[in-house]
Amino acid sequence: MKYPSHIHCYDCFELELPGPNSGNPFQDISFSAQFEHDGRVLISQGFYDGDGIYRVRLMPDQVGEWRFVTQSSAHDLDRQEGHFTCLPARVGVHGPVHVADQFHFAYADGTRYLPLGTTCYAWIHQGEELERQTLDTLRQSPFNKIRMCVFPKHYRYNQNEPHFLPFEKKDDGSWDFARYQPAFFRHLEQRISDLAELGIEADLILLHPYDRWGFADMGREADEAYLRYISARLSAYRNVWWSLANEYDLLKKKPMLDWDGYFQILQTLDPHNHLRSVHNWQGLDTHDTCTFYDHRKPWVSHCSVQHGYVDLVSQWRETYGKPVIVDECCYEGDLPNGWGNINGVEMVRRFWESAAHGGYAGHGETFLDPMEVIWWSKGGTLHGESPARIAFLRNVLESLNGGTLDPLGRITDTNQPSAGKSGSYYLTYFGFRQPRQMTITLDGDGEYTAEIIDTWEMSATRVPGTFSKSGTIQLPGKPYMAVLLRRVG
Amino acid sequence: MKYPSHIHCYDCFELELPGPNSGNPFQDISFSAQFEHDGRVLISQGFYDGDGIYRVRLMPDQVGEWRFVTQSSAHDLDRQEGHFTCLPARVGVHGPVHVADQFHFAYADGTRYLPLGTTCYAWIHQGEELERQTLDTLRQSPFNKIRMCVFPKHYRYNQNEPHFLPFEKKDDGSWDFARYQPAFFRHLEQRISDLAELGIEADLILLHPYDRWGFADMGREADEAYLRYISARLSAYRNVWWSLANEYDLLKKKPMLDWDGYFQILQTLDPHNHLRSVHNWQGLDTHDTCTFYDHRKPWVSHCSVQHGYVDLVSQWRETYGKPVIVDECCYEGDLPNGWGNINGVEMVRRFWESAAHGGYAGHGETFLDPMEVIWWSKGGTLHGESPARIAFLRNVLESLNGGTLDPLGRITDTNQPSAGKSGSYYLTYFGFRQPRQMTITLDGDGEYTAEIIDTWEMSATRVPGTFSKSGTIQLPGKPYMAVLLRRVG
Repeated sequence: MKYPSHIHCYDCFELELPGPNSGNPFQDISFSAQFEHDGRVLISQGFYDGDGIYRVRLMPDQVGEWRFVTQSSAHDLDRQEGHFTCLPARVGVHGPVHVADQFHFAYADGTRYLPLGTTCYAWIHQGEELERQTLDTLRQSPFNKIRMCVFPKHYRYNQNEPHFLPFEKKDDGSWDFARYQPAFFRHLEQRISDLAELGIEADLILLHPYDRWGFADMGREADEAYLRYISARLSAYRNVWWSLANEYDLLKKKPMLDWDGYFQILQTLDPHNHLRSVHNWQGLDTHDTCTFYDHRKPWVSHCSVQHGYVDLVSQWRETYGKPVIVDECCYEGDLPNGWGNINGVEMVRRFWESAAHGGYAGHGETFLDPMEVIWWSKGGTLHGESPARIAFLRNVLESLNGGTLDPLGRITDTNQPSAGKSGSYYLTYFGFRQPRQMTITLDGDGEYTAEIIDTWEMSATRVPGTFSKSGTIQLPGKPYMAVLLRRVG
Repeated sequence: MKYPSHIHCYDCFELELPGPNSGNPFQDISFSAQFEHDGRVLISQGFYDGDGIYRVRLMPDQVGEWRFVTQSSAHDLDRQEGHFTCLPARVGVHGPVHVADQFHFAYADGTRYLPLGTTCYAWIHQGEELERQTLDTLRQSPFNKIRMCVFPKHYRYNQNEPHFLPFEKKDDGSWDFARYQPAFFRHLEQRISDLAELGIEADLILLHPYDRWGFADMGREADEAYLRYISARLSAYRNVWWSLANEYDLLKKKPMLDWDGYFQILQTLDPHNHLRSVHNWQGLDTHDTCTFYDHRKPWVSHCSVQHGYVDLVSQWRETYGKPVIVDECCYEGDLPNGWGNINGVEMVRRFWESAAHGGYAGHGETFLDPMEVIWWSKGGTLHGESPARIAFLRNVLESLNGGTLDPLGRITDTNQPSAGKSGSYYLTYFGFRQPRQMTITLDGDGEYTAEIIDTWEMSATRVPGTFSKSGTIQLPGKPYMAVLLRRVG
């Protein structure tokens, strides 16, 4: 039995035990551990990691002494006990992200988390060199979340062989969905850890339809076993989000009841209750929103949406009562495909529009490349005009000191909705509208400064003086401006 | 009895008769004429024009001899007979516009009419100098339709006194809705004639809610009398379209049954069957279209729509089975108001998007002006970036030689819908999308040229060679491009 005597809060504690390696240890052996801290008990599922080694993990979230005892159908793995000390979190580690204030997010330690994500579906299947480059790019980017697939991807511009595969093959050459290749998962874990060190959440796509291997249609039994296995392996990683599928409605063989059941597996087995959602395909450029998975269901933590009309975000907040992340609102690029060819201006507009409606947009980049290294799928480097502006948006949002944007209706004569916290700060965003002036009417007696924000040129200009109750602000008559009022008295 | 012995086809024939001027000739006297040409009979309502003079008008639409006989409750106006000769239309006169090919328009002589309209609601209420300037501006503009109100307008930036008023006042100072001021209507007629000489259709708004005089709420009886009077006066003007109201759903005192009845008055009394529609208020920036008047009703000739999401045009074509003109899709300008502050790029995008979905957009311009002379309401001069680009669009559409754009689904790998005539020409418009290439797949054996159109820079670049069945076109990877394929063999 191996395990560390000390661990920092929100890091991954791991207990290693030797055990049986005959038969199929992935499915024949049950193995879990019960962790106890200060009267609170968490149960974590263990997993077989090959070569006769079993592991069980936990992400301790409280400082102090933790005790554990294992349970297993195998004698060698059963009733093993121990204890370890949880030390304060390392600097910069804030724990897993959870829903906060109904429509927003915060880390476990209470620090505000503002999701500004990007998308590199298959970046972990590209080999060391390109994966390192992707991490370097991410390090310098504004993004603090990445959508990424567990399984390799087969799609237009994505024909290369993956470096790792998740399952073993049977003698007849077909996949044995009951036997995992631990190396595949260890590589995935390494990449999730790499992201954690960069402060980036891994919005992990567990199932997807872009497939030539058969992983998209393994059947319910194999799907469920895979979900149990991956949740046992990954739940202790603080930066994991469970995205049950990308474009789940393209996985047409899986009935809705199966999706519900898959969610419940994660909900039941993940002791850390990581965020859970699922992402739709249909509806991107329609005015229809009825093709989403019903995000009101209790096991869904937040809305993960593909849609181009992000002014609907405030409506989805009301419909589902949960945070809204439009993680696919089209990608900046120049592909033929409509989902991958909006210009940078429109991409940035969709980020601001989402924010101004109380939600969050997601980024992706899809410029044609002679080597078919396209960020949205393989990672590499960024070429577009939007990331710098998304960084600027992140700065503006962070300047609210943990505050968030919630719809506040119309506080101006401009017909544009405003968002913020009533009595504290108000953001009004104009997109392709270019008013020359706007008149504000506020309740209460507060005194406010006003900044005119050029979201494209990335500048903020303080309007001289202060405002209270009402006032008229002259604007430059240019598109892509926002006005931010902040209370100062 | 005065009338001309000869008149050109589609011009306004007028018979003048003296008659009773006691009592209230506007309401006490019935007066009409029956016109006959080659066995075909048209009945036209006459009207009292003040000073004991009655008139009845007709727009002859067939060359040759026309006979008439009057009918009246007044002896002096009854059973007056005569005849006149209709000569071929003057050069450039094509007759009134009607629906053609279900979703489009043509003049009576068969010439294609492509509505590219603008909006100057109250331009005829601004006095000679400004009205002349407006006509000069229109002469140099691409616009061949104008939305304009009969009644004066009271609204933000519209507080000035009108030069003419439509009704007389009673001794107590209140309006006498049963007595018209003929000078008001003669002025209106002059302006409609001025537009006709410029080849511009007058999309005449008969009722509207922007009112400080009480004309918006005259009650059903006065509304109906007014509609009978104005249709008697104006039906013989070839360039008149009946727009029953602007933002009809803001005239909340008028029930739906009244609107239906008003349409039926025009349908019954106008012998020339001018185009008829009515324009909604609600829904501009929503994704909802249920606030339109039901354009399926038989008296509606085409959809007159206020809406910002013009990609819905093809859906409305299917819903209503009629031509769609989004005559208010927001205005280019810099007002605070959301309906009046989109930038030129977005305005031009909405024109092209409407065309590419088989419909037509309308223009308006709303730049703040220290004298409050704003084109959308008062006319004057144009300042925006869109009119030149709308002229360019008009050139492109006219280059189809009378052809029109109907939705053709997807003929490319770009997800963008194409429009045109299958087997003849295909337009694909990309808006803020910037594909670097597109691959076309066509049915049939035709051979096509391709032009890459920069809708903002107003250029068309021929792609070398020709295409048949399929081919890939390299594009510049810039937004606001279109590709037009034309059959050449």
